Amino acid sequence: MNEGSPARHELNELGEFGLIDRIRQKARLKVPNILKGIGDDAAVWDVGDHYELISTDLLVEGVHFDLAYAPLQHIGYKAVASNVSDIAAMNGTPTHIVVGLGLSNRFSVEAVDALYSGIHAACENYQVDLVGGDTSSSAAGLIISVSVIGRVEEHRVAYRSGLCPNDILCVTGDLGAAFAGLQVLQREKEVFLANPNAQPDLEKYEYCVGRQLKPEARMDIVHELKDMNLVPTSMIDVSDGLASELMHLSTQSNVGVKIFEDKLPIDHQTYDIALEFKLDPVTFALNGGEDYELLFSIRQSDFEKVKNHPDIHFIGHALAQTDQRVMVTKAGIEIPLQAQGWTHFKK
Amino acid sequence: MNEGSPARHELNELGEFGLIDRIRQKARLKVPNILKGIGDDAAVWDVGDHYELISTDLLVEGVHFDLAYAPLQHIGYKAVASNVSDIAAMNGTPTHIVVGLGLSNRFSVEAVDALYSGIHAACENYQVDLVGGDTSSSAAGLIISVSVIGRVEEHRVAYRSGLCPNDILCVTGDLGAAFAGLQVLQREKEVFLANPNAQPDLEKYEYCVGRQLKPEARMDIVHELKDMNLVPTSMIDVSDGLASELMHLSTQSNVGVKIFEDKLPIDHQTYDIALEFKLDPVTFALNGGEDYELLFSIRQSDFEKVKNHPDIHFIGHALAQTDQRVMVTKAGIEIPLQAQGWTHFKK
Repeated sequence: MNEGSPARHELNELGEFGLIDRIRQKARLKVPNILKGIGDDAAVWDVGDHYELISTDLLVEGVHFDLAYAPLQHIGYKAVASNVSDIAAMNGTPTHIVVGLGLSNRFSVEAVDALYSGIHAACENYQVDLVGGDTSSSAAGLIISVSVIGRVEEHRVAYRSGLCPNDILCVTGDLGAAFAGLQVLQREKEVFLANPNAQPDLEKYEYCVGRQLKPEARMDIVHELKDMNLVPTSMIDVSDGLASELMHLSTQSNVGVKIFEDKLPIDHQTYDIALEFKLDPVTFALNGGEDYELLFSIRQSDFEKVKNHPDIHFIGHALAQTDQRVMVTKAGIEIPLQAQGWTHFKK
Repeated sequence: MNEGSPARHELNELGEFGLIDRIRQKARLKVPNILKGIGDDAAVWDVGDHYELISTDLLVEGVHFDLAYAPLQHIGYKAVASNVSDIAAMNGTPTHIVVGLGLSNRFSVEAVDALYSGIHAACENYQVDLVGGDTSSSAAGLIISVSVIGRVEEHRVAYRSGLCPNDILCVTGDLGAAFAGLQVLQREKEVFLANPNAQPDLEKYEYCVGRQLKPEARMDIVHELKDMNLVPTSMIDVSDGLASELMHLSTQSNVGVKIFEDKLPIDHQTYDIALEFKLDPVTFALNGGEDYELLFSIRQSDFEKVKNHPDIHFIGHALAQTDQRVMVTKAGIEIPLQAQGWTHFKK
């Protein structure tokens, strides 16, 4: 470096969460009806008789998806579903989306139709309207930005910051399956590149591959919680891995968390794949990412309402000690949780 | 092409507006409170005591901006201003934005800070909150997606579809300057590439270069119209060039338009640059793009309210004949308007 030239700091020194923190610190809210800015699954503003919600995702070819194994329909579907999941995580209902699309000239009209057929299928499934967008060319591959708007009644909104000591930590569905599916797809891609005549055999991995390629937002849970008249004390969607999401709840609520390894919901196919790859299924569950399940907390007094729900699992509870973030292993040993998450900006 | 293989149609056969039409046709609205979907400057939904607005833009390095001459601060500022302009075009007020950012590892923390300093400056200027976003890596250069939310009172919203015969067509500021500035910047870039020691002399082009690099949304006009108690019958922002925007108003309102060449507001510097490049200044004004001025219409009975405004120009009027879209030249000849606009997906 030349003397006198300004210092250069690499983004990978900060990491994604460090960068978000840096941006958040400089973004002071000044508009009176904005209730929540950067730092939750969606931003929240008050429009009088309810709250509105907005969340945005930017998906870049080669970073978030690989056209070698992901069909365009599924990419379109997943782009919407992963955004809807952010609205679900606020205990809200999505209403409409806008979609920005960057397309290199390798994409045909038929390819764009395929992408939109997935977007429309997701809109239909989640009862969301596509209301606007922007299309442009792109020097390199496919870029998709989706912003989703939702709504929630004032007394039903769930923030990351509402977790209280002794609240029960709940997670929906199962964890690690999307990451397991990704391992299989990446292996099949390698096989195919080495031998283009090889026929991939994905049938026995169907569940996990499906979880990777076409995840669903858990709007069903949001509706059921409403029917049960239950408002979670805190909520977040599991997009970066359970450990990372637990850290967010803990940090923003200023409480500790304790979970139990033997309570983690892991599908048998996820187990099988992890073992096949000589990896630990619990690591898949803790750090896998892209499950789009909901992690939420309830008061102990609400436990009766949900205790028999077949798809809600009780994995632990919150602690008064802020710095305690632990998992109790099957052997009964407490180990500290570490948020690996998805790190963009890696070298 | 192999027999039996599906036909492939290139995006450049459709063009950007053709592609938007194709997307719009398949996007049927089903959510009851959505009032306007694809096809205006922003989507509109009813939240009870007012309307909310949303618009989105996707900006891709090498397509929408060139880091060879655009400083990152200005790119951040322009990304916000061009979105705010879409809210202005609905006669609304912006309230908050979300920003998605894709960054290749050529960008440092300092570069991201520079980009955000421009975003924050625009947020401050337009009194908008930055409430959320998404950051990720990018295989190729810088990608910025901005979605902006705004609000408008029910009786003040202005659509593209409200133009009526005999309404007066008004345009703010002056036209073609941003395009003129782009010509200068591109020439200086060529000169620099040929001779890296060459010092660019941009001073005499300062106004037009500024219009290209750091445009402003005309929120001042939106506020003044409110103070005058004047609601435009239709409105659109001039982002693709005046001719293209006139076509949008004409098509969506099902009326014709007549404008007069000698009424087009063109700055003397835009004139000088056009002549220097041996090009027609009127073409700059009609097809230049990125001016971010407002094109709107008023009833004849409202003319008194604005006739003395120094920055609103009366360029023509609407006609009952739907297929009449003409400009009367200085020589008194009627020529058909052609929307050249900005064509992405060109070969």
